[in-house]
Amino acid sequence: MKREGGSEAAKRRAGERAAEAVSEGDVVGLGTGSTAAHAIRALGRRRADGLDVRGIPTSHQSRELAIEVGIPLTALDEVGGVDVAIDGADQLATVDRSAGVDGGETATSDRGEPTAALIKGGGAAHAREKVVDAAADRFLVVVDPSKLAATLDRPIPVEVLPDAVPVVEDALRGLGGEPALRAAEGKDGPVVTDNGNLVVDSAFGPVDDPAGLAAALSAIPGVLEHGLFVGMADVVCVGHEDGVDVRRYRTSEG
Amino acid sequence: MKREGGSEAAKRRAGERAAEAVSEGDVVGLGTGSTAAHAIRALGRRRADGLDVRGIPTSHQSRELAIEVGIPLTALDEVGGVDVAIDGADQLATVDRSAGVDGGETATSDRGEPTAALIKGGGAAHAREKVVDAAADRFLVVVDPSKLAATLDRPIPVEVLPDAVPVVEDALRGLGGEPALRAAEGKDGPVVTDNGNLVVDSAFGPVDDPAGLAAALSAIPGVLEHGLFVGMADVVCVGHEDGVDVRRYRTSEG
Repeated sequence: MKREGGSEAAKRRAGERAAEAVSEGDVVGLGTGSTAAHAIRALGRRRADGLDVRGIPTSHQSRELAIEVGIPLTALDEVGGVDVAIDGADQLATVDRSAGVDGGETATSDRGEPTAALIKGGGAAHAREKVVDAAADRFLVVVDPSKLAATLDRPIPVEVLPDAVPVVEDALRGLGGEPALRAAEGKDGPVVTDNGNLVVDSAFGPVDDPAGLAAALSAIPGVLEHGLFVGMADVVCVGHEDGVDVRRYRTSEG
Repeated sequence: MKREGGSEAAKRRAGERAAEAVSEGDVVGLGTGSTAAHAIRALGRRRADGLDVRGIPTSHQSRELAIEVGIPLTALDEVGGVDVAIDGADQLATVDRSAGVDGGETATSDRGEPTAALIKGGGAAHAREKVVDAAADRFLVVVDPSKLAATLDRPIPVEVLPDAVPVVEDALRGLGGEPALRAAEGKDGPVVTDNGNLVVDSAFGPVDDPAGLAAALSAIPGVLEHGLFVGMADVVCVGHEDGVDVRRYRTSEG
């Protein structure tokens, strides 16, 4: 899926700011995509300067880059948790400050911080990204301004068991989506994810209730994971040509 | 996971009754397990007698058995849908007649039929079973009386991306579960599913709200599918030594 981007300078500033938030001894979730790659490179420079960090990659791409820049790798089952995850997003919107995002079972609205809703998965790595990002004590999102939207409206990538594609497409249509199996470049046929599954990109138009749609997508049999990340981000670093706008968000888990 | 069973006679009666519900020209979802196997064998005999049916297997086991008994195979992307699915269950409970199962968004309670909640996945085939069973116009469950319970309380099998196991286990504990990675017999290490993933069996004790737990399990990053099938069964055939008790249920989709 084509993801038109902002400037490299803006992406680099966002990634570098996020890498500064990593502390001595941290286990860091290493996101996928062009902006997260700037964070990985910056972290590699901090590592070369003596910072003790280990990385958990979210994809083949971030694994290879981490090796290239000298960040020692670890794995979830070796360390049990992640201190901070740094990852990009294809689109980001702020969800209403007062409404509960998960049925409002926790009284977090008094903290006065909005909730972030992301669309991820343009790089087809969103299943593993969600595992690592959700495991992190702090999840930092790095974006350039072209990713910000008032309402999420990009197609939502859905990772699907290969045999289940026609059934999942029917279910997505039932939710108001327009699904399209993602075609590969560099091979004939569909994109195959690092997990061996296929990706259906489903356009829904403007998504007024990201948390509700996320739950509905998760419940579809044959769906491994979808690209809606709602209430997971703690901090968003928006890179500009001349600086970084750092925004704080509350998360669903409170 | 060990699944203690009822008598073969009871299982055979249940499977044979379900096979009788198949009509000329039907595409049939072929379930996995010892009771569903009786249905597949009965369907093979009806096919030998001239019935035009095609089968969509839910596992390597049901695929091989269908080939053995002469049921022509097809696939979801060839036919687009399933007329009737026949599958077993590890445990089955009836959910409160009046309560809505999916937030009660549809007014189906006036039909006066209860809803069935199943636990499946003892055979680690529940992801593909759920895809096929959910795609079916009618879903017939075949069980012997040992599978019936007032409240579901068996461990719930959860299919998990291999790398995500520790994170998913933490999330299951957060929901009150006691997770245990399923060990294989016939190979060292864990069971690997037909989809290449691992299985975590999570004991929750009595499950008072199967629909709520199902939604929570679906939302965990790294969970491919779980073994709770709530509001999916149209008919349950309970086989006994001397007959079959056929029960009708309403489904969530109305």
